[in-house]
Amino acid sequence: MWQAGLNIFYLIAFFAVIIAFAYTCYLYLWVKKQDQKNIKIGKIGILIRNGANTFMKKEYIVLAKFALIMGILIAIILPTPIWSSNIWDNIIMMLSYLSGTIFSAIAGKIGIFVSTLANTRAAEASLKGIKQSFLIGFRGGAVMGLAVVGTSLLGVAAVLLFTDNTTALLGFSFGASSLALFAKAGGGIFTKTADVSADLVGKVELGIPEDDPRNPAVIADNVGDNVGDVAGMGADLFDSNVASMAAALVMAAGLDATLNNSTNTSMVFCYSALGLIASIIGIATAKIGKKGNPTKALNSSTYVTTLIYLVLTAGATYLFEGFRWEIWGASTVGLLVGVLIGLVTNYFTDDNMPIVRKTAKASNSGPAFTILSGTAYGFISAAPAMVGIAISALVAYNMCKDIGEGYAMFGISMAAVGMLSIVGMIIGNDAYGPIVDNARGLAEMGNLGEEAINITDELDSAGNTVKAITKGFSISAAGLTVISLLGAYVSKVNAAAIELGKETIVGFDLMDPKVFFGLLSGAAVPAVFSAMLILGVDRNAQRMVAEIHRQFNQISGLKEGKEGIVPEYDKCIDISTKGALRELIPAGLFAIIATLVVGFIGGVHAIGGFLMGNIVSGLLLALFMSNSGGLWDNTKKYIEAGNFGGKGSDAHKAAVVGDTVGDPFKDTAGPSINTQITVVSLVASLMSTIFLAFSIF
Amino acid sequence: MWQAGLNIFYLIAFFAVIIAFAYTCYLYLWVKKQDQKNIKIGKIGILIRNGANTFMKKEYIVLAKFALIMGILIAIILPTPIWSSNIWDNIIMMLSYLSGTIFSAIAGKIGIFVSTLANTRAAEASLKGIKQSFLIGFRGGAVMGLAVVGTSLLGVAAVLLFTDNTTALLGFSFGASSLALFAKAGGGIFTKTADVSADLVGKVELGIPEDDPRNPAVIADNVGDNVGDVAGMGADLFDSNVASMAAALVMAAGLDATLNNSTNTSMVFCYSALGLIASIIGIATAKIGKKGNPTKALNSSTYVTTLIYLVLTAGATYLFEGFRWEIWGASTVGLLVGVLIGLVTNYFTDDNMPIVRKTAKASNSGPAFTILSGTAYGFISAAPAMVGIAISALVAYNMCKDIGEGYAMFGISMAAVGMLSIVGMIIGNDAYGPIVDNARGLAEMGNLGEEAINITDELDSAGNTVKAITKGFSISAAGLTVISLLGAYVSKVNAAAIELGKETIVGFDLMDPKVFFGLLSGAAVPAVFSAMLILGVDRNAQRMVAEIHRQFNQISGLKEGKEGIVPEYDKCIDISTKGALRELIPAGLFAIIATLVVGFIGGVHAIGGFLMGNIVSGLLLALFMSNSGGLWDNTKKYIEAGNFGGKGSDAHKAAVVGDTVGDPFKDTAGPSINTQITVVSLVASLMSTIFLAFSIF
Repeated sequence: MWQAGLNIFYLIAFFAVIIAFAYTCYLYLWVKKQDQKNIKIGKIGILIRNGANTFMKKEYIVLAKFALIMGILIAIILPTPIWSSNIWDNIIMMLSYLSGTIFSAIAGKIGIFVSTLANTRAAEASLKGIKQSFLIGFRGGAVMGLAVVGTSLLGVAAVLLFTDNTTALLGFSFGASSLALFAKAGGGIFTKTADVSADLVGKVELGIPEDDPRNPAVIADNVGDNVGDVAGMGADLFDSNVASMAAALVMAAGLDATLNNSTNTSMVFCYSALGLIASIIGIATAKIGKKGNPTKALNSSTYVTTLIYLVLTAGATYLFEGFRWEIWGASTVGLLVGVLIGLVTNYFTDDNMPIVRKTAKASNSGPAFTILSGTAYGFISAAPAMVGIAISALVAYNMCKDIGEGYAMFGISMAAVGMLSIVGMIIGNDAYGPIVDNARGLAEMGNLGEEAINITDELDSAGNTVKAITKGFSISAAGLTVISLLGAYVSKVNAAAIELGKETIVGFDLMDPKVFFGLLSGAAVPAVFSAMLILGVDRNAQRMVAEIHRQFNQISGLKEGKEGIVPEYDKCIDISTKGALRELIPAGLFAIIATLVVGFIGGVHAIGGFLMGNIVSGLLLALFMSNSGGLWDNTKKYIEAGNFGGKGSDAHKAAVVGDTVGDPFKDTAGPSINTQITVVSLVASLMSTIFLAFSIF
Repeated sequence: MWQAGLNIFYLIAFFAVIIAFAYTCYLYLWVKKQDQKNIKIGKIGILIRNGANTFMKKEYIVLAKFALIMGILIAIILPTPIWSSNIWDNIIMMLSYLSGTIFSAIAGKIGIFVSTLANTRAAEASLKGIKQSFLIGFRGGAVMGLAVVGTSLLGVAAVLLFTDNTTALLGFSFGASSLALFAKAGGGIFTKTADVSADLVGKVELGIPEDDPRNPAVIADNVGDNVGDVAGMGADLFDSNVASMAAALVMAAGLDATLNNSTNTSMVFCYSALGLIASIIGIATAKIGKKGNPTKALNSSTYVTTLIYLVLTAGATYLFEGFRWEIWGASTVGLLVGVLIGLVTNYFTDDNMPIVRKTAKASNSGPAFTILSGTAYGFISAAPAMVGIAISALVAYNMCKDIGEGYAMFGISMAAVGMLSIVGMIIGNDAYGPIVDNARGLAEMGNLGEEAINITDELDSAGNTVKAITKGFSISAAGLTVISLLGAYVSKVNAAAIELGKETIVGFDLMDPKVFFGLLSGAAVPAVFSAMLILGVDRNAQRMVAEIHRQFNQISGLKEGKEGIVPEYDKCIDISTKGALRELIPAGLFAIIATLVVGFIGGVHAIGGFLMGNIVSGLLLALFMSNSGGLWDNTKKYIEAGNFGGKGSDAHKAAVVGDTVGDPFKDTAGPSINTQITVVSLVASLMSTIFLAFSIF
């Protein structure tokens, strides 16, 4: 048996990162060398890429300012206020934070870079059949997936190697998640403003097809797919992945310190590296036949990845002395529950399943019934995932508690690591969606013909189904991660309490009114946070609708589709951009400030309750919104496929209302809640010393 | 100073009850002697009354069976299983439970009795102006309010007097709340099935006015107002009131036992009796001028009641030795926070306030925006109430904790008692709503002319505004009550633990995965519960819509309003009745069974978390649903008053969709959650001994 030592695991991690980057480069070059000859598609592709780059640039400027201000504040007060600490600690903290933001931004940028290249190529390939077109979409997404996981593993390993300090790791994670919070919110508002407005005026009022080039908002809609679903979602999962590793490493370091070795820390790195390798293998083996089913192909590569991960980690656990089977068990439980949650989500959102069909039937009675059914099923769909997360935590805890003190919570954190181990694959599948969605639009706008449109439609539909699954997965992973961050929070508080000569925390008693105060306040935060984002989309879409109306009224020949008449696409992109930049800050800032207010009022106990309340209602609302949104989207698609009267029927009109409500639910508010939960947890952990010293109650 | 002794407070309580009943009789006779001469209105009034009585009878038969089965189960296992206990204890428990159900049923019956009398009289009085018509509606509601509070105080006092056993009190409370759970759900499904279907076919499809006698569902709709909003809501508040007294008395008895006197028990009775007296005075002084504003009249009598209660309890606290000012403070904090929550609700739902107007503006862009705005504001509106409840608990706890051990939790329970002290007034205002809503319908169906319709419209609109406020109030009161029930739960568990020689509970640590498991599971319950009710309405309304269509198609001359042609009203009443009876059991049973499953899996610790998770998500969802429903209702009314294009405009159509979604939100699912929370808490308290003895983890 081998002795586990940390250095060798740094090497394994860096080795996995190098393989991942090499393979990413290969995939990128493969995508790039695919045909892009059609001039019309090329032109529209450039419009989309420029729109995306412009938005990203403006967004990153705003976020850079925010990060700098936060960096300065961090340098002043964290890990302890500058007047009572070693200034180097504060500088390291600030640098870790800034690195987190930079790594996250790079991952988002890589995603946009390749997705705006893959979209046109996937569109053109659709002329030759589904096989090649699918592969371009899939590999384009995979570039994003591997880039995100590679950079997060690299970042975490580098920070720990240079600083040898787990608090700095939390700082890095906070950088990643604060950036993700705004990137997700901003991208989500951008994309849904465009999508909702384009649909509302185009489909509902004028009855022109989706992606019709006459629609002034159509390019903004395609840009939105990239900035919201590729860059925003990438930042979100980058953040979850870093946070889960950070939480596990904080606890592992504590356990290792008492054992005077590095077994547990090594284990975290080893498992993460093996997850990355499993994702690479899963991606490399994905393929589809000439008449293949893209949904099956996407799902089967996820299952392959899962299986390889379990085998590889079992092998590692067997090989390395000190690695415990109980912890492998906890990580396995996490992963399996994640997969199960994905299946439940699928049941509630797939149009081959009864729920979508029942909602479609209800739509026959009018839009109010579409909304009522979707809301009700959305609420029900949240329950299995919540109970699943609770059970995986309960099982992981009980599996590991006999190893020794502190291992129970470490087990929960390893369940989160396990759940997120296949995140490379998940992101890949998720980023596949917007690429083929774009390809569908390009096929329509480039007049590639019925056959090409049908193929890209099928690819797009697979993307929608898989997206719902991956969303459920990533929300649950965030939930488990944050529970393990609560463990990290307690470690921090107690370390500080011992230093300040205060009483240490043994737990957070629900009967303590401070905890209760925190619990209820924390539960209110995701509700208000998501409401702010929805209202942002609502306001912004109203502006955009007015602009589309203006163009149709003032540009003569546009409505009729006269040759040579093009709408002013850039005006709509501009409205989406400005609105997103204006609306993205308040909601995120609200979540951070609420945490500070509760901390200064109720102290560390209130914050414990606050975090838990935040998880509880955050999970409930995020799952509800993502699932009901996915359900409405597929209800509309199911009716459009010719059921209950098909396109143009009353049921279809009702379903379009549902889809419009679902858009900001599932692509703006719902998935942003993940990030909100993580940010709040990290703020709490980082501020714990200060809350301990200054609070009213 | 007087010495506080329990006997004198029993006397005070019974004295207050007698005054209340006497005054109730006076009000009833006053309402009855008002004119009811119009033959057409008289006939329709009888249809409504018969419909309501038929439904109540059928519902009570179902509930009686349920109560009997529960009674037998209780006799077998509670307070401890029959094979290990004194059989008399079990019989007392069963009798207490059954008394609770009977008292609750009586309160509901009284409400229906008077409301179906007051509706026709208020309609006829509208011919003479607003003053008399208002007074009939108000006094009709007051009969219900005083009857509910009178019977609840009588029941609690009687149970305690006869059994001298606080566990029996929990049994009584469980009886009341299990009946309320089903009465609220059944009534809510009945009323919204009829309301939604009548609106959908009548207003939206055919464009005929609300309450048009040609509409086959119009009588069912009016019946629904009575069985849902009068009987259902009365049962709900009966239950909250009993539960708050029970929780306070359980803790008071514990405290008194160590002091060997009866100060705290006396205090609970004294405060409750004074609340009843304050409500009587508030009701007696209510009036309105010839051109008065009914909303103001309703609100000002609430404020009068609040003030009188504070003065009376301050006087009692001063007069009786042993009464502590800190506890008066806690009760005052509860009441004031309740009033504040009412004002916040008003801000979000009153059409003189900006939120309704913003939602109306959004409706211009289509129904999706109505839904998005309403959802977002609904989420935001939940936050102040949640934080308010948390703060009132925190303040009450800290005010009372220095009195001695156990007083902190008793303080919270007295905050709940304080919040519910004016419940007689609240129920009165609430029951006023359906009476004048009926009166409006009768004025329309009886052809009383434009003037009378306008007057009843104004009365109805005041009812809607006040209803939203009272709903926020009663949800918050349920929240606080349940927190104090958690205290009662801990006392029960620890008493049992000592008996079984097990470790006592000091609290529920959020870091304990059993607590966490309970927390997440508990949070999922209100989501699933409310979804089941919404789907019940959804399904049932689809059946009713089909029936209305059938009648319009098959009964010739109905659509055109040919003289002498009447629709088959009874068929619609029958669909509402059958559907409600079919759908009311599963949701309630689900909540009870979920509690048992979690208890047998995770034991008493999991249940602690379960209760808290249930409160957190229950409050969030109940407040969200009630407020967004109220907001949509008033948005529609605001547009109908001529804004944004008025009736028939696109904005109006969008607002009607919002209102239809809001109907089951605010009148079925939202307010049923109160009761669900209370039932679950009581099940947990009663089963605590059994969970302690048998659980997996």
